[in-house]
Amino acid sequence: MIQLKDVAELAGVSTGSVSKVLNGYAVSPRMKKSVELAIAELNYKPNMVARSLRTKTSNSIGVMVPYTNDPYFMEFFRGVSIGLSEKGKVPFLFSTEPHDEFSAQKMQQIFMRGVDGLIVSTYGWKDSVLEELYLIAEKIPVVSYKRSFPGTAIHSVGVDDCSGMFKAVEHLTSIGHRRIGYIASGLNLDTGQQRLKGYQQALEQAGIAYEDNLVVESAAFQIEDGYNAVQQLLKRFPLPSAIVGANNSVAIGALKFLESRNVKIPEDIAVMGYDDEPLSTLVTPKLSSVSVPVYEMTAKAVQIIEDAILGVHKETINILFPTTLKIRNSTDFSATAAFEFERFSR
Amino acid sequence: MIQLKDVAELAGVSTGSVSKVLNGYAVSPRMKKSVELAIAELNYKPNMVARSLRTKTSNSIGVMVPYTNDPYFMEFFRGVSIGLSEKGKVPFLFSTEPHDEFSAQKMQQIFMRGVDGLIVSTYGWKDSVLEELYLIAEKIPVVSYKRSFPGTAIHSVGVDDCSGMFKAVEHLTSIGHRRIGYIASGLNLDTGQQRLKGYQQALEQAGIAYEDNLVVESAAFQIEDGYNAVQQLLKRFPLPSAIVGANNSVAIGALKFLESRNVKIPEDIAVMGYDDEPLSTLVTPKLSSVSVPVYEMTAKAVQIIEDAILGVHKETINILFPTTLKIRNSTDFSATAAFEFERFSR
Repeated sequence: MIQLKDVAELAGVSTGSVSKVLNGYAVSPRMKKSVELAIAELNYKPNMVARSLRTKTSNSIGVMVPYTNDPYFMEFFRGVSIGLSEKGKVPFLFSTEPHDEFSAQKMQQIFMRGVDGLIVSTYGWKDSVLEELYLIAEKIPVVSYKRSFPGTAIHSVGVDDCSGMFKAVEHLTSIGHRRIGYIASGLNLDTGQQRLKGYQQALEQAGIAYEDNLVVESAAFQIEDGYNAVQQLLKRFPLPSAIVGANNSVAIGALKFLESRNVKIPEDIAVMGYDDEPLSTLVTPKLSSVSVPVYEMTAKAVQIIEDAILGVHKETINILFPTTLKIRNSTDFSATAAFEFERFSR
Repeated sequence: MIQLKDVAELAGVSTGSVSKVLNGYAVSPRMKKSVELAIAELNYKPNMVARSLRTKTSNSIGVMVPYTNDPYFMEFFRGVSIGLSEKGKVPFLFSTEPHDEFSAQKMQQIFMRGVDGLIVSTYGWKDSVLEELYLIAEKIPVVSYKRSFPGTAIHSVGVDDCSGMFKAVEHLTSIGHRRIGYIASGLNLDTGQQRLKGYQQALEQAGIAYEDNLVVESAAFQIEDGYNAVQQLLKRFPLPSAIVGANNSVAIGALKFLESRNVKIPEDIAVMGYDDEPLSTLVTPKLSSVSVPVYEMTAKAVQIIEDAILGVHKETINILFPTTLKIRNSTDFSATAAFEFERFSR
């Protein structure tokens, strides 16, 4: 059986150097090449499971998302994957759906597969699962995406959702809208509450009275939830002249329902999303939204994990990123019609 | 340290039964509940890595996709995830991008993390990586999605792409189109060649001469590739009255370019996709396409893996599934405008 030392001998380097290459640590390109050639020539197959027991590190990071059929979470995973690959680490993706069956025990199983850290999006998780996450965060680094857990060891990267939604609604009031419907999603979460607060503050700043019956709650965060929720807003009198979705998918659902009823967007009703993703530019008209810097946030999450594994952080890190208003045709008829590829092309 | 036998004692069952529960095997709901309660009460944390060394099974299946930002591959992963979860197995997702850097060595690393099987979509893989896959398939079950590897141990689930594309083009000729442009993608792959063959055979059946200059090759499979490729077809004279994409994303790219040039779809040019996915019903007009039974195929892939792990299969399994024509507004103005949720809602 070929062993690590045989590879080292053929490559003319130390066993420590071979180990570094196998674990993805930075070495000179020349050393990397010699080791890889030696591995290939000897057909050496290190046993990663045995090594992970010995070294106590697996060089892999678990990534958990609530859905795998939502482009929003796939962009997040893609960002994390790119960041981890650049560090020579392997991402493992897990989906926590169906949420109502996802258990603390399953969470433990994933943890015990020996990942060095977790990057998680916890939407829909039950308290019992979150409590397990708090315990895991005492043992390995955990970074939460978009949601912070004060008082626990969980790090987080997020955005200021109140100011982000404020920008969205301020854009609408600045172009003359006074009657603005709001599709609220995730009101049980801090992010959902902050977005509603941003909506209310922007109305207040424009001197518009808040009306309870212009706010409808969607069942969840997906396209069909927005498609269903918007129908309640269309029963209001007078009709709202603009509708904002608390996330991009519910706004797209609203837009699709309005299209099916031949409502002209933005002439009859303007539609605004939040938390921009590639779908925004594929629907007609293109959806105005508020963009969150997914790739900067995921790169930071990866950096926090890496530093934490190396023991750099002595305290819990919580970072908020800024948002950017993206004005497109669903609120502004004259907005540029250029097709945007950048978020697909990465 | 709490051990398996302590859990068994508290639960009043054998250690074998605890092991079954931990490994996700079918046991009575009552036994499952007692074991879970005992695990929770004792805060027992089995070491999965150590167990995987001992039992030689990890109860996890690796899933490899070429992209994570393409809804097509995410539907595939979602199907596999649902299927594996139902069997109590854990899916690990890996992305093989960037393809030009993805190496046989990385493939080995993934294999050596101790998965019991692999379900793979190999688009873009280099020969050196494929050769590594052939070797891995001698050791653990491997099922390929959409591509077969005759003469190797790799199982496959696929569709008859020639007859699928034949249906798409036959639909267009049946409603009067005689000049049909074709955006070819993946001509270096068997699937791409079969689709082109289907296009040619449908023309022949309708008595339409094949013209080389109505076929353009896209750089790759994504939306922007179709957006770019269709521009060549618009330089032909006379213009084609219909355009077919060899996959759904290139067709959506074509549709988006035509929209940006104010071409009326389907009145001026009809657009047809292939390999339907949820985006089809989000673009305007909704895209006609040929649907592949993703969930049936992924369920079958999971079943093949499970049977192969149990040693059921003595030979390589290759299964072809039938396709279904989906007629929507991009080829037929009068097609139903009802919004389709079923593929989002699963």
